[in-house]
Amino acid sequence: MSDLQQIVHALGRRARAAARVLALASSEQKNRALAAIADELLAATDPILAANAADLTAAREGGLSPAMLDRLTLDRVRLTAIAQGVRAVAELPDPVGRNLRDWTHANGLRFAKISVPIGVIGFIYESRPNVTADAAALCLKSGNAVILRGGSEALASNHALAAAVARGLERAGLPGDAAQLVPTADREAVRQLCALDEFVDLLIPRGGRGLIETVVQHARMPVIKHYDGICALYVDAAADLAMAERIALNAKCQRPGVCNAIETLLVHRDVAAEFLPRVARVLRDRGVQLRADPGALTVLGGEQAPGIAAAADADFRTEFLDLILAVKIVDSLDAAVAHIAANGSHHSDTIVTEDATAAEIFLRAVDSAVVYWNASTRFTDGAEFGFGAEIGISTDRLHARGPMALEELTTYKYVARGTGQVR
Amino acid sequence: MSDLQQIVHALGRRARAAARVLALASSEQKNRALAAIADELLAATDPILAANAADLTAAREGGLSPAMLDRLTLDRVRLTAIAQGVRAVAELPDPVGRNLRDWTHANGLRFAKISVPIGVIGFIYESRPNVTADAAALCLKSGNAVILRGGSEALASNHALAAAVARGLERAGLPGDAAQLVPTADREAVRQLCALDEFVDLLIPRGGRGLIETVVQHARMPVIKHYDGICALYVDAAADLAMAERIALNAKCQRPGVCNAIETLLVHRDVAAEFLPRVARVLRDRGVQLRADPGALTVLGGEQAPGIAAAADADFRTEFLDLILAVKIVDSLDAAVAHIAANGSHHSDTIVTEDATAAEIFLRAVDSAVVYWNASTRFTDGAEFGFGAEIGISTDRLHARGPMALEELTTYKYVARGTGQVR
Repeated sequence: MSDLQQIVHALGRRARAAARVLALASSEQKNRALAAIADELLAATDPILAANAADLTAAREGGLSPAMLDRLTLDRVRLTAIAQGVRAVAELPDPVGRNLRDWTHANGLRFAKISVPIGVIGFIYESRPNVTADAAALCLKSGNAVILRGGSEALASNHALAAAVARGLERAGLPGDAAQLVPTADREAVRQLCALDEFVDLLIPRGGRGLIETVVQHARMPVIKHYDGICALYVDAAADLAMAERIALNAKCQRPGVCNAIETLLVHRDVAAEFLPRVARVLRDRGVQLRADPGALTVLGGEQAPGIAAAADADFRTEFLDLILAVKIVDSLDAAVAHIAANGSHHSDTIVTEDATAAEIFLRAVDSAVVYWNASTRFTDGAEFGFGAEIGISTDRLHARGPMALEELTTYKYVARGTGQVR
Repeated sequence: MSDLQQIVHALGRRARAAARVLALASSEQKNRALAAIADELLAATDPILAANAADLTAAREGGLSPAMLDRLTLDRVRLTAIAQGVRAVAELPDPVGRNLRDWTHANGLRFAKISVPIGVIGFIYESRPNVTADAAALCLKSGNAVILRGGSEALASNHALAAAVARGLERAGLPGDAAQLVPTADREAVRQLCALDEFVDLLIPRGGRGLIETVVQHARMPVIKHYDGICALYVDAAADLAMAERIALNAKCQRPGVCNAIETLLVHRDVAAEFLPRVARVLRDRGVQLRADPGALTVLGGEQAPGIAAAADADFRTEFLDLILAVKIVDSLDAAVAHIAANGSHHSDTIVTEDATAAEIFLRAVDSAVVYWNASTRFTDGAEFGFGAEIGISTDRLHARGPMALEELTTYKYVARGTGQVR
């Protein structure tokens, strides 16, 4: 084994041992650990901010964009919020040990389906160091050990944060190895993690195409991707156009850089002449560029109109994460559904209509994690769903779809209690 | 693309199109298709048996074992049973469209979590042709399209069966492409399926180590393995030894060739001298060979005793699927749990004890799909669980654990109905 392989293998071995302890920890002990972690994070404010300052200096020298620098930055206010987030997780119900179902066999054997931790989770994410503490807290609460692989530009910050987390775990009598950081920025470490199916039960990658592709290609264990949101708003022939305008504005502009913002606006032909100029006006006022298909371009006054450009096909398959919206006129509800099936990312899509039949067809036929009728796609979020916290939003279909929180960090086992039953 | 790639790619493309239709089919239409498939299977008795005879001739020339030849053989009785099995699936409740949970946001947005089909399932299995019809029926009922990859020795039989299935689908107005057979015995086709994440949402391999390893290494999509059962019976210090004997006999001998039979017997030191000779006698009468660790070997009279051999370490990590049982004396409940964690396959394990505290520790600490107290491991089975049918028994941890049936062939989506809600 190479040195790196040895390092990653040792992380895995220790995580597996820690997971066995964590799986049997009581709710009370896990909550005590969360409180201790919050305390340790605040107590380590100075070293954490010093480590973050070193990361920021290197990142500035490396030419990181201002937006990325902002995401990387920690200060006293942000660190306090991180510690409060950890304390808030303690308040949530324990997702482990829930009785999901029970029944009795005709022979008297009593079955119960019980939620249990997944085991060891490999969590691969980018830039923002607050995710390090959030993910550690959620994995701890759900009884899982976690191996954290953050962005290379946040390595020193993450080190300092993870050290505080480990101290908190140990203060509560739990193994510090329950939340370990991959101690190197070497990209090869991700591939090593992907091969570690002996020790890692689930990989959660959250990031860009390069990261996701590496994980999909190499992982030997289950993967739940947290990837693109190419979300669409479809304005039906029977839409309340004032409502459609409000929803378009909210879903595009309230926070354009997140995965549940819309990237595509589909408008039924019958209302396009009325709706498109109207929505274009309010969107333009908010600085949104519209990239219009030929039909929409005509209605909107052509490319010379301010804030209007011609759409390329690729624009309908792009997560802009910016004040850009691809616009298309469709002939029917079916055409809208077909467009979403062919171009969307199965994340979140919404129909605005007063026609309940059309709405129910859309809700049934659109195969996305969350499908809305007369509401903004921005509600696809763990907190909005009432989950209390989230580790991300799954764009995969199995085990977890959409907002992924504590329950989605558990699996189940069956327990059967008998009196000597045989077949 | 190679010819094979083109063939597999086309299977995927057609399966995806069929899955879209199937996902929206009504329960009534799916049940009509199941009835039509059963009819078509019986109507095609002659060509199916002729194809099977050709497979059997080739298999005999290829030197297939008598046991494998028996598994490959179809006759009128078996074909009637297959058709009845398909009809029985129609009687089961539709697993699609169940309301798994619903709640309302403070702003009035109404959420529902609804079961939906997974999409396209790649099912890779070995030898027994009855699995072809079973899997097609279960996937159809759960609204999924399936690509079937059976054993090469059953290719002609599977062709004839799949043709009857496709005719049944079409008679009910559903796409025949909803259940397609990979039309070649080329092993490379499995690797091509593994790369087809554009069209295949889940791979279910059911077979030996070579197949599983190929799939784990190459699959780009989720995989649910149906693999080894290295199941253990632990006889506690406080066991009812007569019950332990009955359960050992049942779990080892009732059907030794299946994954939920026990392969390991762990006996607490305090009862070993009394229990081991006694259970050895009844097991020997049933033709079982015991492979004993040094401690058990001494109690059992050494290697010269009839039916007794010394165990190698590997015997405790082997799925014998035969009348062989690895036997070990352990010092404590904890040692039994540790042995199972280190050597078992997380399938099914059981404790026999009258001590409820010991039982609950075992049920909690043993991390297997099904954990039993005072019952045979042989109950790990879709029919025994009341699931009505099963596509296999998952040895994985995510999405489906243990018996996998109709519900486990679905995933979910969220549907949210609003009145113009924005954030």
